Amino acid sequence: MLNFDFYNPTQILFGQGRIADLNKAIPASAKVLLLYGGGSIKTNGVFDEVMTALGSRQVTEFTGIEPNPSYETLMKAVALIKESQIDFLLAVGGGSVIDGTKFIAAAALFEGGDPWAILEKRGTNITQALPFGTVLTLPATGSEMNSGAVVTRKSINAKLAFSSRHCFPKFSVLDPAKTYTLPVRQIGNGAVDAFVHVMEQYLTYPVNSPVQDRFAEGLLKTLIEEGPKALANPHDYDVRANLMWCATMALNGLIATGVPQDWATHMIGHELTALHGIDHAQTLAIVLPSMLRVRKEAKRAKLLQFAERVWDLREGNDDTRIDTAISKMQDYFEQMGVKTRLRDYGLNSSHISSLISALETHRMVALGEKRDVTPAISQQVLELSL
Amino acid sequence: MLNFDFYNPTQILFGQGRIADLNKAIPASAKVLLLYGGGSIKTNGVFDEVMTALGSRQVTEFTGIEPNPSYETLMKAVALIKESQIDFLLAVGGGSVIDGTKFIAAAALFEGGDPWAILEKRGTNITQALPFGTVLTLPATGSEMNSGAVVTRKSINAKLAFSSRHCFPKFSVLDPAKTYTLPVRQIGNGAVDAFVHVMEQYLTYPVNSPVQDRFAEGLLKTLIEEGPKALANPHDYDVRANLMWCATMALNGLIATGVPQDWATHMIGHELTALHGIDHAQTLAIVLPSMLRVRKEAKRAKLLQFAERVWDLREGNDDTRIDTAISKMQDYFEQMGVKTRLRDYGLNSSHISSLISALETHRMVALGEKRDVTPAISQQVLELSL
Repeated sequence: MLNFDFYNPTQILFGQGRIADLNKAIPASAKVLLLYGGGSIKTNGVFDEVMTALGSRQVTEFTGIEPNPSYETLMKAVALIKESQIDFLLAVGGGSVIDGTKFIAAAALFEGGDPWAILEKRGTNITQALPFGTVLTLPATGSEMNSGAVVTRKSINAKLAFSSRHCFPKFSVLDPAKTYTLPVRQIGNGAVDAFVHVMEQYLTYPVNSPVQDRFAEGLLKTLIEEGPKALANPHDYDVRANLMWCATMALNGLIATGVPQDWATHMIGHELTALHGIDHAQTLAIVLPSMLRVRKEAKRAKLLQFAERVWDLREGNDDTRIDTAISKMQDYFEQMGVKTRLRDYGLNSSHISSLISALETHRMVALGEKRDVTPAISQQVLELSL
Repeated sequence: MLNFDFYNPTQILFGQGRIADLNKAIPASAKVLLLYGGGSIKTNGVFDEVMTALGSRQVTEFTGIEPNPSYETLMKAVALIKESQIDFLLAVGGGSVIDGTKFIAAAALFEGGDPWAILEKRGTNITQALPFGTVLTLPATGSEMNSGAVVTRKSINAKLAFSSRHCFPKFSVLDPAKTYTLPVRQIGNGAVDAFVHVMEQYLTYPVNSPVQDRFAEGLLKTLIEEGPKALANPHDYDVRANLMWCATMALNGLIATGVPQDWATHMIGHELTALHGIDHAQTLAIVLPSMLRVRKEAKRAKLLQFAERVWDLREGNDDTRIDTAISKMQDYFEQMGVKTRLRDYGLNSSHISSLISALETHRMVALGEKRDVTPAISQQVLELSL
């Protein structure tokens, strides 16, 4: 096992009816900025429940945080905070709203000039942030219980990540019943996103970490079991609860403790989103199967473990079991309604060179757990995904 | 899944050489009270490493916190803190030193009269505590990453638990190499303690919580695999690291999320320690196998799952698999050097009635996940353990 630090102070309020507990979780005197995306929380009852729980607190609204939240949009919220003496942020939505709120929380108190520097320095220059909580409506990114975020700057087609120990939510409310009305596409994307988060921390090389491995495998098996049920029975509370808890646990730092991490699939996926607007989870579903096929030798030991423990494959030789496991994973993504080929999204071989250039521009030239995924290997991965 | 709150802000600094990081983890201006038990940290190098890391900080020592730390001893530390204007506590040791330090941290700032009231009210009356960190030298109780503690009052033979969100360690240093020199008995006790902690949260009744179940099963399987290796090869770093991380994860609140909890075995065990001085883990090894046998019908579904997933038992009828699983668990405790019968500790049937009276005195009359473990059932459990 590798040495590690683990720290995660976010309080989780999980279960039906927990939005009412916002009243206890937020200071009574807080001047709250309520941040959300489109209007879905206005039609599914979440907005009303939140406002009721906030009671007589002064609440200002900031709406329109888009998927892949943009620096341009988020800076408008920063300006509003400065005008209105806001002292507490409440993000209501999915990963994009929460990621955006993390950036806003840090940018509002940033003393190092243009807050774009936060992204350029990956958050290492954050020294404080406004306190914020979240009400999660879409289980997927895990942002509700971690300190990281990804922000897009539209003007330069850049999608960059940052994290800081100052950017953990103070609390997150997770009410699985609030996910009943989500579109099929978002449930599918969410399950795939969580699955790939686990894989980026699990499918590397063995370092004798049986607890972390079994936790990761437990999450993967649960996602495989519960994902299709969530599509078939949208109002099954336990299924939605299990999916939600999987997504949170997939990226709260726990399964990353003491193990190598990959993240090459995410970095290539970010360029697909930035250049072509493909949903984040879709990009992961496109890249990961090919990444595992191309990196098969480097990842052989863990691929065999994945085949046996996650997919229960015990027949056939090593290569057969590995190939079958990767195919089963790809089938699972498709089963969840997430297409896994570039051609499914209208892309062909002519689009690959600009993606590789973008990786190079963003210095994503030595990716993966051993930093040996060069642009040439990324190109091979994308070609295999055509 | 049941509704739940989860909150655990303790920072973990895990790995070889991490004691040096105390210098970053503790404020430079802190007036530190260093708390420990016997003298083992003076002979195994831990004390020197800690003092080096603390550098020029003002350090006062408080030694002699005993196993099953006593109110009487701990109150001496509280007096010392008040005399010396201490503002940071550093516990160096195992669960007893850390539990004791939690009580001291709360008692030092307690404004409700005699701090014994903290135990009488189970910690609900704690409103503040001195900040403290820990250096863990004995993986077992999980106290290094939770907010609970158990304190004994010798004068009245009482062993009582409390917890408070103010009593999480700010940080805990976990260096597996510091456990190499532990006596066999403490390694055995530690593995059994962690195992039973998991069981108290896992072996109840199903509530459709696959993530929590698989995490619990992962910890149990790892303890089963790594425990004997830790006895056979005391200097195997990875084995000690895995054991240490299991013990921490077994009782940091995570596997308790959204599931029923039992704890009857612990409550009966506390009386065995209070009246007869038997090691905590030994009491658990005595009580749990009989508890599962006596509660077999109420716990049937989870016992079957335990048999299949933890012990890989798939042959024979349900009762055979359950009985085999419980026997294998008991064998594992014995293999770890922890005896599982009252007679192994010199107790016989004549000792049972006073144990039951003690349970009644402490109002432990409706134990277990369904509050249906009466004193009569506790008596049946103890009789089966003779």
